[in-house]
Amino acid sequence: MSDLETSMVSIIDVFHKYSGHKCHLKKAELKDLINHEMRHFIKKVQDDETLGQLFSDLDRNGDEKINLREFMTFIAQVSSACHDLSLMHD
Amino acid sequence: MSDLETSMVSIIDVFHKYSGHKCHLKKAELKDLINHEMRHFIKKVQDDETLGQLFSDLDRNGDEKINLREFMTFIAQVSSACHDLSLMHD
Repeated sequence: MSDLETSMVSIIDVFHKYSGHKCHLKKAELKDLINHEMRHFIKKVQDDETLGQLFSDLDRNGDEKINLREFMTFIAQVSSACHDLSLMHD
Repeated sequence: MSDLETSMVSIIDVFHKYSGHKCHLKKAELKDLINHEMRHFIKKVQDDETLGQLFSDLDRNGDEKINLREFMTFIAQVSSACHDLSLMHD
């Protein structure tokens, strides 16, 4: 596989590391994933209000779970934001 | 950086490899990227009609260029589709 394909698979693997076999993330799992795997890109999620707002923003279909598609949309948003920030500092 | 962060940066790097400093992809660059970096996930893009349709689907703001945000949305869609396919074969 190419570097791009390997990276895509790696992101899916990290999702599964926190979702387990049920293939979706609950609030606590999303919080753990962000705080352990995205420390350089996102400020630590501490309070329930911040977590609740983020979770509902990502939960597009409103089923109280974050599926892979919703998670990948989140990754796309964070990547784009980081990229835009890096351009501002160039 | 974590594996997730490294993968996100790696995807942005591949985008830049094909966009160059102008930070967006033209049709030919998108075609090259797909055909060289996504061979295991996407059938080779051959004809202009397929490329044109894909390009217009991704070009959400209609500026005839694919920016990083639009590219990351594409990556999210392909990753989710591959994931759904892999679940069907489990």
